[in-house]
Amino acid sequence: MSFEAWVAIHTPRINAALDQLCPSDGSPLREAMRYSLLAGGKRLRPLLCIAAAEAVGGSAESVLPAACALEMIHTFSLIHDDLPAMDDDDLRRGVPTCHVKYDEGTAILAGDALQALAFKTLLKSIQHTEHPCLAIGALAEACLSMCDGQAADLAAEGKELSLAELQEIHEQKTGELITNSIYLGALLGGGSEDEVFRIQGFGYHIGIAFQIVDDILDVTGDDATLGKPAGSDLKHDKATYPKLVGLDESKRLARAAEQEALKALEIFGETAEPLREIARYIVERNT
Amino acid sequence: MSFEAWVAIHTPRINAALDQLCPSDGSPLREAMRYSLLAGGKRLRPLLCIAAAEAVGGSAESVLPAACALEMIHTFSLIHDDLPAMDDDDLRRGVPTCHVKYDEGTAILAGDALQALAFKTLLKSIQHTEHPCLAIGALAEACLSMCDGQAADLAAEGKELSLAELQEIHEQKTGELITNSIYLGALLGGGSEDEVFRIQGFGYHIGIAFQIVDDILDVTGDDATLGKPAGSDLKHDKATYPKLVGLDESKRLARAAEQEALKALEIFGETAEPLREIARYIVERNT
Repeated sequence: MSFEAWVAIHTPRINAALDQLCPSDGSPLREAMRYSLLAGGKRLRPLLCIAAAEAVGGSAESVLPAACALEMIHTFSLIHDDLPAMDDDDLRRGVPTCHVKYDEGTAILAGDALQALAFKTLLKSIQHTEHPCLAIGALAEACLSMCDGQAADLAAEGKELSLAELQEIHEQKTGELITNSIYLGALLGGGSEDEVFRIQGFGYHIGIAFQIVDDILDVTGDDATLGKPAGSDLKHDKATYPKLVGLDESKRLARAAEQEALKALEIFGETAEPLREIARYIVERNT
Repeated sequence: MSFEAWVAIHTPRINAALDQLCPSDGSPLREAMRYSLLAGGKRLRPLLCIAAAEAVGGSAESVLPAACALEMIHTFSLIHDDLPAMDDDDLRRGVPTCHVKYDEGTAILAGDALQALAFKTLLKSIQHTEHPCLAIGALAEACLSMCDGQAADLAAEGKELSLAELQEIHEQKTGELITNSIYLGALLGGGSEDEVFRIQGFGYHIGIAFQIVDDILDVTGDDATLGKPAGSDLKHDKATYPKLVGLDESKRLARAAEQEALKALEIFGETAEPLREIARYIVERNT
């Protein structure tokens, strides 16, 4: 199966599951949650989770709730990051952000409720597995890390950061959730200890690649490609890879991280092909 | 042991555990979390959790992390409810609210991180129990319910509510977390199915009593007793029991709920005495 066909099978399944797992009850709060959750997006974290499960011989179906939980956490973080008290963005995925479409109070609560719904949803993938507490712990750590990263990011606005400081913020803000998406897929897909360990290595490097490319796109992309105003990071005077090391070196670093990620998958055969393809996609999108 | 002695033993233990479970790392985010988490408060939910565990023959020690997780969830909800986009309160537990002391962005993230930390912390009480997923599910449901209740409460400002509507909002906003504090104590304390069921009944009624008395205190209390501006609900034109049914009828309803709660504990002996005393305390504080 081609990678495009693989994505075309799994993306609608993820969207349908998200729709079911966060049903409307007629309340504005639930509408706001659904508005942001179902507004599209590449579903990168769920796809990574499913691809990791398949790499270790697990089924997409068994990790589908976990995959959706990861997208809920991601959406929760986007809703809160966009708030006026944070990054103050009006546009996300090409449509008005949650607090613009609804109001700030509803957007704060929608994020809160999506975090809780993620933990509830994850239960569906872990109830009959060996390590339910490891999985819950991984999701909780990813959330904590995102909060730490966002706080550090806000505190760093207008300040000079070293590359090491920038990398730490990125790892907390974006990397941990991406790494844990892959980890949860491998863990709940039934991977051996060694397989899970190697797939975590992949996740670590691909998390770094992802953020570098995001920073590059903020400079080189246009509004339509990004679904949000290009140059948003520059506007906030945020530290980014291109700002710190230049565009060419940023691209080189992204490709180096991709190579490290692919190396970690060497022990796997064809079942890991979607994971490898996602790695390539992450680095090559519009750069 | 007198109830006062029981409280005097467990409250400092809860406070010490909270201090340990949310250690400082020098960041403003962690400071903000600790500021709100360690700002005092009666620790009602942790005490209820511990009392429920003891009622079924469990130990306070084994449920202490769960008890702390409940307080983290409670604190998270207070921080977010106090935000300008929500209830816009400047004072809480007698000190400036989190967003006044720090800033809005930090307060939003502190709430988010406390929710995640609660799930992480709960793991310490459930890792070696029979039903880890039931416990996680109960905490997640309580969070979701709180968000629903707060959203309904905001939507109801300035509107006429029926008593049934008011009760539903209260149950979501306050009742569920109180009920689940008691449920988690009984479940993780090793209670039998019947014991857990009865203790849940107690929790349901005491949750109702708690909110009625809170409404009464908003009318009759002063700032010092409440730790927040008295009349805050009136200011927001919120539906309250005294507004809907009058002060005397509110007091009668609170005592009726207390009686129902105590009836649910009839099968228990002396081990349930702290739970009974908390019920009495809830209804009799300053009314």
